[in-house]
Amino acid sequence: MNIDDVLVQIDSQMQESLGNLMSFMRIPSISTDPSYRKNCREAADWLASYLKSANIPAEVYTTSGHPMVLGHTDGPGPHLLFYGHYDVQPVDPLEQWHTPPFEPCLQETSQGQVIRGRGSSDDKGQLMTFVEACRACIQVHGSLPCKTTFFFEGEEEAGSPSLVPFMREHKDKLAAEIALVCDTSMISPGVPSIASRLRGIMKDEFTLLGPSVDLHSGSYGGPALNPLHEISKIVASLHNDNGGVAVEGFHEGVGNVDESILSQWSNCGFDEKAYLHSAGMTRPHGEAGYTTLEQQWARPTLEVNGLWGGYQGVGSKTVIPAEAHCKFTCRLVGDMDPDHVRKCIRKHVNDRLSDDVKITWDNEPEGSPASVMDVNRPEFALARKALSEEWGREAVFTGMGGSIPVTRFFADILNMESMLVGFAQDDDAIHSPNEKYNVNNFHKGIRSWARIVFAIAGSK
Amino acid sequence: MNIDDVLVQIDSQMQESLGNLMSFMRIPSISTDPSYRKNCREAADWLASYLKSANIPAEVYTTSGHPMVLGHTDGPGPHLLFYGHYDVQPVDPLEQWHTPPFEPCLQETSQGQVIRGRGSSDDKGQLMTFVEACRACIQVHGSLPCKTTFFFEGEEEAGSPSLVPFMREHKDKLAAEIALVCDTSMISPGVPSIASRLRGIMKDEFTLLGPSVDLHSGSYGGPALNPLHEISKIVASLHNDNGGVAVEGFHEGVGNVDESILSQWSNCGFDEKAYLHSAGMTRPHGEAGYTTLEQQWARPTLEVNGLWGGYQGVGSKTVIPAEAHCKFTCRLVGDMDPDHVRKCIRKHVNDRLSDDVKITWDNEPEGSPASVMDVNRPEFALARKALSEEWGREAVFTGMGGSIPVTRFFADILNMESMLVGFAQDDDAIHSPNEKYNVNNFHKGIRSWARIVFAIAGSK
Repeated sequence: MNIDDVLVQIDSQMQESLGNLMSFMRIPSISTDPSYRKNCREAADWLASYLKSANIPAEVYTTSGHPMVLGHTDGPGPHLLFYGHYDVQPVDPLEQWHTPPFEPCLQETSQGQVIRGRGSSDDKGQLMTFVEACRACIQVHGSLPCKTTFFFEGEEEAGSPSLVPFMREHKDKLAAEIALVCDTSMISPGVPSIASRLRGIMKDEFTLLGPSVDLHSGSYGGPALNPLHEISKIVASLHNDNGGVAVEGFHEGVGNVDESILSQWSNCGFDEKAYLHSAGMTRPHGEAGYTTLEQQWARPTLEVNGLWGGYQGVGSKTVIPAEAHCKFTCRLVGDMDPDHVRKCIRKHVNDRLSDDVKITWDNEPEGSPASVMDVNRPEFALARKALSEEWGREAVFTGMGGSIPVTRFFADILNMESMLVGFAQDDDAIHSPNEKYNVNNFHKGIRSWARIVFAIAGSK
Repeated sequence: MNIDDVLVQIDSQMQESLGNLMSFMRIPSISTDPSYRKNCREAADWLASYLKSANIPAEVYTTSGHPMVLGHTDGPGPHLLFYGHYDVQPVDPLEQWHTPPFEPCLQETSQGQVIRGRGSSDDKGQLMTFVEACRACIQVHGSLPCKTTFFFEGEEEAGSPSLVPFMREHKDKLAAEIALVCDTSMISPGVPSIASRLRGIMKDEFTLLGPSVDLHSGSYGGPALNPLHEISKIVASLHNDNGGVAVEGFHEGVGNVDESILSQWSNCGFDEKAYLHSAGMTRPHGEAGYTTLEQQWARPTLEVNGLWGGYQGVGSKTVIPAEAHCKFTCRLVGDMDPDHVRKCIRKHVNDRLSDDVKITWDNEPEGSPASVMDVNRPEFALARKALSEEWGREAVFTGMGGSIPVTRFFADILNMESMLVGFAQDDDAIHSPNEKYNVNNFHKGIRSWARIVFAIAGSK
């Protein structure tokens, strides 16, 4: 098989590809709102039909939530599982859209042409980059160079309640050598990116119990223990003056990032200043001595996400409240163990309680460790080379500050590594009004996947 | 005039006095709820009629809120102004009352007989101690030994919106040498108390503004500045390890309490341990080196009354919020100036802001200084002696942790000192279900006022 003919075919049918994506986008497949249930089914049906029209046998599977779509085609190369989601975010606030969210259109912008509309980037546009690459290849060669399974869900924006049961039930149909996911961004415009580190998470919360009832600050102010003062002291003690976490044992398993990866990060064209500025900051406020990207991708955090107690209404209330509350999450890296981290933090807090203060902890804390992909696997090097060729710029192994749950399910249930390659940009406004996807990213995204699939096929 | 005959008269008509108080209590004069407006008017009318039936000319004055009642009787001694309020607190939660709140009854308890019902203590029972003393005296002697003005309002539980305008308009009718108020508690059962120090107050609040929008702790956690961490550091810095306020300049004007007063406090029978225990504490948590009473009456405080930011719902939300909020009040003593205190605290906080943090302060802060009565005035010594005789125990010049606004209005508008003598107990459950007033306190309260009025009359 010849990749060049496939790339020519892709280029020649770009208008058709855009038209097909826009047909897909016209289906308002909002997964969180039950009134769009029929539309989610419609989007699943559309996808299955579209795969079949590209000579990829496909089927829609009913679940207790929105349907799954599975397609499959044989090929000589390694077995790939491509994952994407056909559901989209709600569109409110609707009045902030400049064009109707489900009437996609092409617009000229300072960045070139963009496809505007809900799902253009997340994830209809991104998943179609892979589908269109495969369609072109089958048009030219009659088949794909790799055995390929297509797996699309319709609940990603709704917490994927059916995903784990479906994976467990259909392990055999989903088995493959590696999962490919197209739901991530490029680190900066024009810089191809493979997200190879996702941070883990640990969630917990506590309540400090001070006086037996809310007290009046007139009569009791002075001798009364104020839980708001206590919780402030405790929260203040969680970090040191260098912005690092001050909890003993917290950093166990953090590990270091290879010099070669660090050098990719510092040369990836990431505009740190603009990035921070867009969030109202002039400098990174995390651990001193680490860059913004290192703080986001390779360093752990302990963030208080909610802190409250006492009176929050208009005016003043002279209350010394009986309780104070704190919710927090940690982002984990390397081999950090969520349970160990939780234990260290609980000890740190419990050790700092004043007498007369009681504490209760959340009964259902959650956690999952970080995912660090094995970038020494041949598929990563091949994909990196393929991306670099397409974009004329060395591809970067980036990190992600958050987690993508599906990659953990692939690892835990299907024992499969994931490779995350996406062509979105940070300014795509996914989850916001006026979502867009750059036409050039869509086009080069399709070409990138053709190159990657051919490159991986060549390894066998 | 002879006090002994008056005391005999008081004793002989105790059943009648209790019956009259209960008639008064049957009127549900809840001032905060507009649906009881008619009942407030009814209570004012009842009071005026009752004064007149005791040969005290009285009149009801309409205001834009609930009416005022003014009575007046001449006498040879110094001119007294007695203040009380006929309105009562709402009764919810109604299901926690063991008897209907407006159907007063006498009950036997381990403390002896009590009058149960809303207003029994606050303030219908207390104000009737003075009225009944005067009624008995007029019955025996035809007049009072002091010129006396009676002043009752019906909005004390509703913030007294009509009080200041009424005082301004009727300065001449309210002019007197000293104001007597019966709306306070005894420091411990059987220990007569004159509240002679009320703390002042200063209210303020601020908001810290960090990131320009709420951020996701996955993508931004690390470099993002977290306003909840910042506000915790600031609140934690407000107090030192000894429980004192750590703000520079804050203590200016605090002053000391006379040794003689301190010795009254340490010998007043106040059960510190039981008091703290009732609020869930085993020790006073204020400034080291001061007793519970000193911390409440003679030391300033800085209490955070509300602290909040981020997510407060069920479960977890991985947010780094854009804002964090803090409401606080200070209790002031001695000559502390509310404006100076506010300036010192604002400077302390502003000096501790990280770069990239902005702050906004409340536009309508409030404050009023402490009131320290001039206990060297002869009325105070005379009242103390009278109370000591009645109760067989040295009366105590106590303090109060909070403020009683009417005393400031008497001082500011009428240029009049107040003397606060009350016979309530901390367990009277004022503002709560099952309010009560000890019959013995009511009885000895009436006798106490007779003695006080005669003692002050003798000074002229």
